[in-house]
Amino acid sequence: MRAVTFQAPGEVRVEEKPDPEVGAPDEALIRVEASGICGSDLHIYHGRVPVEKGFTIGHEYVGTVLEVGADVERVAVGDRVLGCFHTACATCAACLRGDYHRCESQRTFGHGSHLGNLQGAQAELLVVPRANLTLRPVPSSMSDEAALFAGDVMGTGYHAVAHAGMKAGDTLAVLGLGPVGLCAVQAALTGGAVEVFAIDSVADRLAMAESFGATPVHLTEEEPKKAVRAATEGRGVDVVVDAVGDPAPLAMAISLCRDAGTVSGIGAYAGKGEVPLGLAWLKGLQLRLGLANVIAHVDRVMALIEAGRLDPTPLVSHHMRLDAAAEAYALYDNREALKIVLTP
Amino acid sequence: MRAVTFQAPGEVRVEEKPDPEVGAPDEALIRVEASGICGSDLHIYHGRVPVEKGFTIGHEYVGTVLEVGADVERVAVGDRVLGCFHTACATCAACLRGDYHRCESQRTFGHGSHLGNLQGAQAELLVVPRANLTLRPVPSSMSDEAALFAGDVMGTGYHAVAHAGMKAGDTLAVLGLGPVGLCAVQAALTGGAVEVFAIDSVADRLAMAESFGATPVHLTEEEPKKAVRAATEGRGVDVVVDAVGDPAPLAMAISLCRDAGTVSGIGAYAGKGEVPLGLAWLKGLQLRLGLANVIAHVDRVMALIEAGRLDPTPLVSHHMRLDAAAEAYALYDNREALKIVLTP
Amino acid sequence: MRAVTFQAPGEVRVEEKPDPEVGAPDEALIRVEASGICGSDLHIYHGRVPVEKGFTIGHEYVGTVLEVGADVERVAVGDRVLGCFHTACATCAACLRGDYHRCESQRTFGHGSHLGNLQGAQAELLVVPRANLTLRPVPSSMSDEAALFAGDVMGTGYHAVAHAGMKAGDTLAVLGLGPVGLCAVQAALTGGAVEVFAIDSVADRLAMAESFGATPVHLTEEEPKKAVRAATEGRGVDVVVDAVGDPAPLAMAISLCRDAGTVSGIGAYAGKGEVPLGLAWLKGLQLRLGLANVIAHVDRVMALIEAGRLDPTPLVSHHMRLDAAAEAYALYDNREALKIVLTP
Amino acid sequence: MRAVTFQAPGEVRVEEKPDPEVGAPDEALIRVEASGICGSDLHIYHGRVPVEKGFTIGHEYVGTVLEVGADVERVAVGDRVLGCFHTACATCAACLRGDYHRCESQRTFGHGSHLGNLQGAQAELLVVPRANLTLRPVPSSMSDEAALFAGDVMGTGYHAVAHAGMKAGDTLAVLGLGPVGLCAVQAALTGGAVEVFAIDSVADRLAMAESFGATPVHLTEEEPKKAVRAATEGRGVDVVVDAVGDPAPLAMAISLCRDAGTVSGIGAYAGKGEVPLGLAWLKGLQLRLGLANVIAHVDRVMALIEAGRLDPTPLVSHHMRLDAAAEAYALYDNREALKIVLTP
Repeated sequence: MRAVTFQAPGEVRVEEKPDPEVGAPDEALIRVEASGICGSDLHIYHGRVPVEKGFTIGHEYVGTVLEVGADVERVAVGDRVLGCFHTACATCAACLRGDYHRCESQRTFGHGSHLGNLQGAQAELLVVPRANLTLRPVPSSMSDEAALFAGDVMGTGYHAVAHAGMKAGDTLAVLGLGPVGLCAVQAALTGGAVEVFAIDSVADRLAMAESFGATPVHLTEEEPKKAVRAATEGRGVDVVVDAVGDPAPLAMAISLCRDAGTVSGIGAYAGKGEVPLGLAWLKGLQLRLGLANVIAHVDRVMALIEAGRLDPTPLVSHHMRLDAAAEAYALYDNREALKIVLTP
Repeated sequence: MRAVTFQAPGEVRVEEKPDPEVGAPDEALIRVEASGICGSDLHIYHGRVPVEKGFTIGHEYVGTVLEVGADVERVAVGDRVLGCFHTACATCAACLRGDYHRCESQRTFGHGSHLGNLQGAQAELLVVPRANLTLRPVPSSMSDEAALFAGDVMGTGYHAVAHAGMKAGDTLAVLGLGPVGLCAVQAALTGGAVEVFAIDSVADRLAMAESFGATPVHLTEEEPKKAVRAATEGRGVDVVVDAVGDPAPLAMAISLCRDAGTVSGIGAYAGKGEVPLGLAWLKGLQLRLGLANVIAHVDRVMALIEAGRLDPTPLVSHHMRLDAAAEAYALYDNREALKIVLTP
Repeated sequence: MRAVTFQAPGEVRVEEKPDPEVGAPDEALIRVEASGICGSDLHIYHGRVPVEKGFTIGHEYVGTVLEVGADVERVAVGDRVLGCFHTACATCAACLRGDYHRCESQRTFGHGSHLGNLQGAQAELLVVPRANLTLRPVPSSMSDEAALFAGDVMGTGYHAVAHAGMKAGDTLAVLGLGPVGLCAVQAALTGGAVEVFAIDSVADRLAMAESFGATPVHLTEEEPKKAVRAATEGRGVDVVVDAVGDPAPLAMAISLCRDAGTVSGIGAYAGKGEVPLGLAWLKGLQLRLGLANVIAHVDRVMALIEAGRLDPTPLVSHHMRLDAAAEAYALYDNREALKIVLTP
Repeated sequence: MRAVTFQAPGEVRVEEKPDPEVGAPDEALIRVEASGICGSDLHIYHGRVPVEKGFTIGHEYVGTVLEVGADVERVAVGDRVLGCFHTACATCAACLRGDYHRCESQRTFGHGSHLGNLQGAQAELLVVPRANLTLRPVPSSMSDEAALFAGDVMGTGYHAVAHAGMKAGDTLAVLGLGPVGLCAVQAALTGGAVEVFAIDSVADRLAMAESFGATPVHLTEEEPKKAVRAATEGRGVDVVVDAVGDPAPLAMAISLCRDAGTVSGIGAYAGKGEVPLGLAWLKGLQLRLGLANVIAHVDRVMALIEAGRLDPTPLVSHHMRLDAAAEAYALYDNREALKIVLTP
């Protein structure tokens, strides 16, 4: 089969590899019909996340089941399925608490040996362990493109809002309108947010957020804090989603949040950062940080997509062939694409 | 002033009464511009809830502030305001927990001496105690008719869903499509329900629920349990709202709910009733019963109405003059009206 | 091996059976060193819960691992282990929500083919499926007798209190001082209850509850409602645990609970029952019913037992040999024993 | 009356002032019988929190009601009472959500005009506004010294643990064993913590924590991270309470916490600080920051003290006369006292 492999920082390549096979009884073999390129793939592409040379990358996918192990019950051969970006054991202390994203033996597709040694989804074939936990049949009315998002980006947008405890009638701000931020905007509005301030500096992304129903605020040409204050009697919003992930956005998130509100830090932080702790403390904020728990949300997210209440398809800016992966990564790295879908 | 008073079971009358005045520093005097007739008014009309002869009834209202006591800060003279159907002390053990609806010195408008001796809102003037807690200025874009619902019926619909812990992506069933049930349908959809089964036996109400986005199910001509099972892979819905309130609907609610789901019993129960406890126990259900905590929800409900996410106005079937109150009650009692708004 | 089997209502027998073997890779074979007789075993004994003639019964056990399948990681051969009374798939919709007790393919040990066809633990050997989920190594400091309770009776007592949302500083009432009620008393006090009213009509059980720190109240010789009211400024307790399970105790539970409080119905209900719904509704109660989710609690319960914060051993009234099972059941049925531990 | 007043950084003085009087109908006049010196008083003493020259300081007190306004119902003349360190309006958006500590018109006793202009409790007489919300009669069995803590330091310790969502069976670490940290240790153990690592560098405080049941860990002579890891199978604790409040302790708190655990930052942060955000994000932590919501907890905290489940009295290291306030502040500033109680 053909597969997109990491070679070196800035270099990915489509290579011919042996067809993978079902090993354990809880595995399924999938013929991948669409895969996505995600912001986290760029971390690999830039060499910030170490992956072995020749490792197949990619973790967003939809496809058809070709074979299943003896214990697989949730999906059957011939089913069109979607999957989550990682697997979990379902039985460790973290999984028992429902924290599948912190599974003690978590394995992420396409992230090399240090994250579970699971070959990636930007390929023609994919073996999925723990299939009962992470695969779902796709309803016939749902397009591949929509299904592709349920187990990763849209699941992350949903998590950003749900994990913050948002209630219908709340106000929100979303910092950063990449795919995750835009999905968080949709998730917030679908869950009953009365106003969502969507903050970024890219006009197209602001326009897309506005088309979803958000109030666009330009990060530098407008004054987000002023805009939020004006619309909330000076209080700030109930929930701020930081979909960027550096200390600077976190500082802004803290400034936009009302007293005793919640900042949902879904954007990846790294290293140390200077944080306005004094302000966060005075306001009595909760900062809820970390990767999304998409396995916990995938059934609800799928149902919302199927019902047309969430619709990630406008985020797809480019369709490319798997063979054009090198070009696709270069384009994505160049920030010319919002979301690229690869098909075999 | 003129006021609608209870006289005897089946008899209300518009009487001339002395104008009420602001007494305590936390009170406000309101010129009532619209008031509603509610299902609970019928309990009084039928004599099931005892109210003194001559007591002014009614507890849904919108109006303009004529005068305020020294401690009133939340609203000012001249403000158009809406109010909640009851007041609370804000400091007892129940209020401290946020259970304003179970305030130890709760007073409900228009329910006679046994519920706090607070003259009702179906009148030209109304004195509102604890004005800071229960009054809100009405945004200029919001109609009287919409505002009228925020502190009672729509607050109850919102509570039915929120108190059940509904999450975006859940499925629901709502039993009974009176005003509360219809508001619960809206609240569920606004909060991200993917499917709401709206169950009643009145065609017009089913049609209205459908126009809101629900799946109508006729109580007797269809088989609610079968319909719900078919759409939920046999599991039942995550949340059932019982907006009727007798043991029979509760039994159906229990049968429609999925394992470990929640039944939100917002419809008034009375006396004792035979309940399929064995089934509820086997399923591991939570039954959350009781009156709505509208004071806790009123700001969010107002925001949702203002944003157009909730719209109670289609429920108003009749506009009548305060002077026609006797006729209005007879009509409502006859089930010819869904919601009657009285204006002076 | 020898095993206690159901023969007919009122008749159990120790029989010789073939030694069971590890089949699937997630199974473990246990040499049972102690097993308990539980209230639910009596339902089988009485013929109320149908079990095939010759089926091995029992679901409380502690023992040593003799053999494990290839996927078992949590316990190893030679480990002394405790187990939960049922298994779960860990991946169905219910398990994903953390409701392991409502697993769609739940299997309970020793309850015949209609509850999963899993041979019971009152035997010399036991095969445990899903070993990673339901088995735990027992700390060396913990006695067999204490360990025996973690995955069933004490887990149920813990659940009764935790599932009700009890907070440190709350007051409680526990109705019914069988093993589950007594464990709930301990769990409540350990979690910070300031006063626990322990209600029963058996003097020994009242005395044991008192020795744990509860306030004993005789069901008929005293007036539970009066006692509770007097101690709570007339309000009632925050949480009532009904560890009996008939409609009559539920009615008392509703009467003892404060406004907006919670009744935790852990005792098994069956069929239909007349419930004072009007009072429950007026009070705004939550009734949380059903079997305990012991898998979700087992690690915390074990830790509390290990720390000496929970101590189920006083509940053990009788030690008997496995061979004396028929006598043991007769004794238990006769209400002469609080808890019987069987050893090979 | 005599009152302790702020004069200048490092200087407080006992001055004669006119007796205060009840003004508004919701006020009570208290004869103060004991008051405490608190860590936050030191912020004033050091000039970090600006207070007007001559302003009476102090916010922990117990005393007897001398006079009440017309609306005061919760306490009566002659009652011995305790109070919370601040008042709240009970009706603003924050209070309605139950966030009394973030009341939009919050007033703190003894903190000058910028925190509500409320004269302090280190005086012979005190006027308490919103008496129904913040005063409680003290049970006769409770000493003045114990009562003094319920509305401030012990309420803060309780909050640190409760706001973190601690469950019975959890493990904790408490950083900083000043009065708040020591109270958090007690609150954790009372709520069912199985092990509490109490971390500080002062031997006496470590010894006191140990006497409460905690596992003492010397901050520098031992290795807290190693100790915690060893006792938790390498996972870290479920909840970390940071009762110190600088970025350095927060970094340690993050390192001690298990994946998806909670850090409760009750110690006051100021300004900006460098935080290991990458680690907090990888672990998926929640940081819950801010002042305690003591009004929400005061009834439970009082009940726990009355039941002997919490006992703050060992923390009182010094009893001094109000007239010796200058000396008391110098001693406290010198870290020679854990807690000083002033009596008239």
